[in-house]
Amino acid sequence: MRVLVTGASGFLGRQAVAAFLAKGVEVHALSRRPPDDKACHWQPFDLLAADGRPSLQSYLRGIRPSHILHLAWCVEPQRFWSDPANLDWAAATLALARAASAEGVGRFVGTGSCFEYAWPSERDCHETLTPLANHSLYDTAKDATRRILGQYFADCGVGFAWARPFFLFGPFESPTRLVASLARALARGEPAACSSGLAVRDFLAVGEAGRALAALTLSTLEGPVNIASGEAIRVADLARLLGRLAGRPDLVHVGALPDRAGEPPRIVADVARLSQELAFQTAQSREARLLETLEYWQAYGRDPG
Amino acid sequence: MRVLVTGASGFLGRQAVAAFLAKGVEVHALSRRPPDDKACHWQPFDLLAADGRPSLQSYLRGIRPSHILHLAWCVEPQRFWSDPANLDWAAATLALARAASAEGVGRFVGTGSCFEYAWPSERDCHETLTPLANHSLYDTAKDATRRILGQYFADCGVGFAWARPFFLFGPFESPTRLVASLARALARGEPAACSSGLAVRDFLAVGEAGRALAALTLSTLEGPVNIASGEAIRVADLARLLGRLAGRPDLVHVGALPDRAGEPPRIVADVARLSQELAFQTAQSREARLLETLEYWQAYGRDPG
Repeated sequence: MRVLVTGASGFLGRQAVAAFLAKGVEVHALSRRPPDDKACHWQPFDLLAADGRPSLQSYLRGIRPSHILHLAWCVEPQRFWSDPANLDWAAATLALARAASAEGVGRFVGTGSCFEYAWPSERDCHETLTPLANHSLYDTAKDATRRILGQYFADCGVGFAWARPFFLFGPFESPTRLVASLARALARGEPAACSSGLAVRDFLAVGEAGRALAALTLSTLEGPVNIASGEAIRVADLARLLGRLAGRPDLVHVGALPDRAGEPPRIVADVARLSQELAFQTAQSREARLLETLEYWQAYGRDPG
Repeated sequence: MRVLVTGASGFLGRQAVAAFLAKGVEVHALSRRPPDDKACHWQPFDLLAADGRPSLQSYLRGIRPSHILHLAWCVEPQRFWSDPANLDWAAATLALARAASAEGVGRFVGTGSCFEYAWPSERDCHETLTPLANHSLYDTAKDATRRILGQYFADCGVGFAWARPFFLFGPFESPTRLVASLARALARGEPAACSSGLAVRDFLAVGEAGRALAALTLSTLEGPVNIASGEAIRVADLARLLGRLAGRPDLVHVGALPDRAGEPPRIVADVARLSQELAFQTAQSREARLLETLEYWQAYGRDPG
């Protein structure tokens, strides 16, 4: 068994690589930057710079992976929603799928997002029962790519699953994101501002998400699978919990930032597939993972700016 | 105004080119083979061999089209349903869209298919009211590409329509297709066999479809538009009509071929968008177009095999 992980140096990719290595699986990283862990094999490769299928096939031929976990996509904060590079990533993903099938890869796991759902206002998002909706170029391109890959891999007999991560937090998150901005402020002893925080979300530690992705990749589960906690929490309550865990509840200022227009009231996952079909269990509590995040920002987040 | 047509040497492309030329529009053909009409500008270019966006952009920069009608896709009879090249064409279409937007193209018309619909058993297929369904890799890739292009072009302000041709017939059709196989047999004085022909379909002459595509490209209509006649006809009745027009009704053998399993009973278009919003009218009757098809096969279809 030999797993190739694309986007292996990213926020989620590095956790997936660590989870594979913890299981003793041989991991090859496809990324522009080298991975942190020296136990992970790496040679530089840029999916967007590849001149299509021929160079991808020769790259895969050098590695001969049995499984691919494909995480690489455009992720620049804010910009990714309507980044024209979403088209390039969709095209690169199709080229990777073609090359994977040609080179005998037996299983391919792609990664979408909870933004593919038409979020129901009261119910949890279920992989196949909840209708889908196109909100932005990002989720449209992800969903469209999944549709093509699902049909293509079914036709050619390659195992295929599609991970849909919900709201992730943890080390190496972009400091512009909610939990990272709060944790960073708390680590610096500065006021941690957030909106009214009435929106209900499903947060999962990125370390747990990496473990879930590794388990999904090594399983035979087919189709979309939510990568989430299944636990609903108000954003304001998460902010207050983080303040308490940091020992500085006084620094958390709920309502200090304006609410964004059009925020959906509730985005929470049905995790029956993850917890029952995949039998996935988290390794640590949410509190322990939030403390880990605070410690990360205490260690790395003190630089100005 | 300067129109670039991809797949310009194909069954439908050559008719679209002729329709643009008839309107006095400057047409550039993007195709591997040169177009028939010398009035059409051409330089060889292979969308699949292009090494991505850079070469596409420099190609477009040399032409500076204001409009693109994109017809190129894998069309090899039977094989196209599950041809892995559907992924290459989806990727090439996304690269073309990126290059088009970067080079200031103002309007892009892509081409899907009536196979994108979940065919209702009694009603006509309406562009936005009829649910869609994925039947094969071909229609899945087409539909997914439309989803991405629709969002992308909306984001960047490029006009976008998506043509959905139904069942086309006419000169240069592949002889393995229904009308072509019947017309060719009749032209050769041989038995013209078909299945029980109970399925109801919507047939449009490819010459009319080319005119409709040219009108759609030059319009400002947005979103999906059926390219069809709106007239329901049983396949057996069309076969008999063709026999009568050829003067050889005796050669038509309805029921001589087995019915294909899983054939949908009815695929007919709602053509309100085409006939009312686009104000499109056919130039010739169906009978005249079927006679044209018979004449084509009388002139070109006498070669053996």
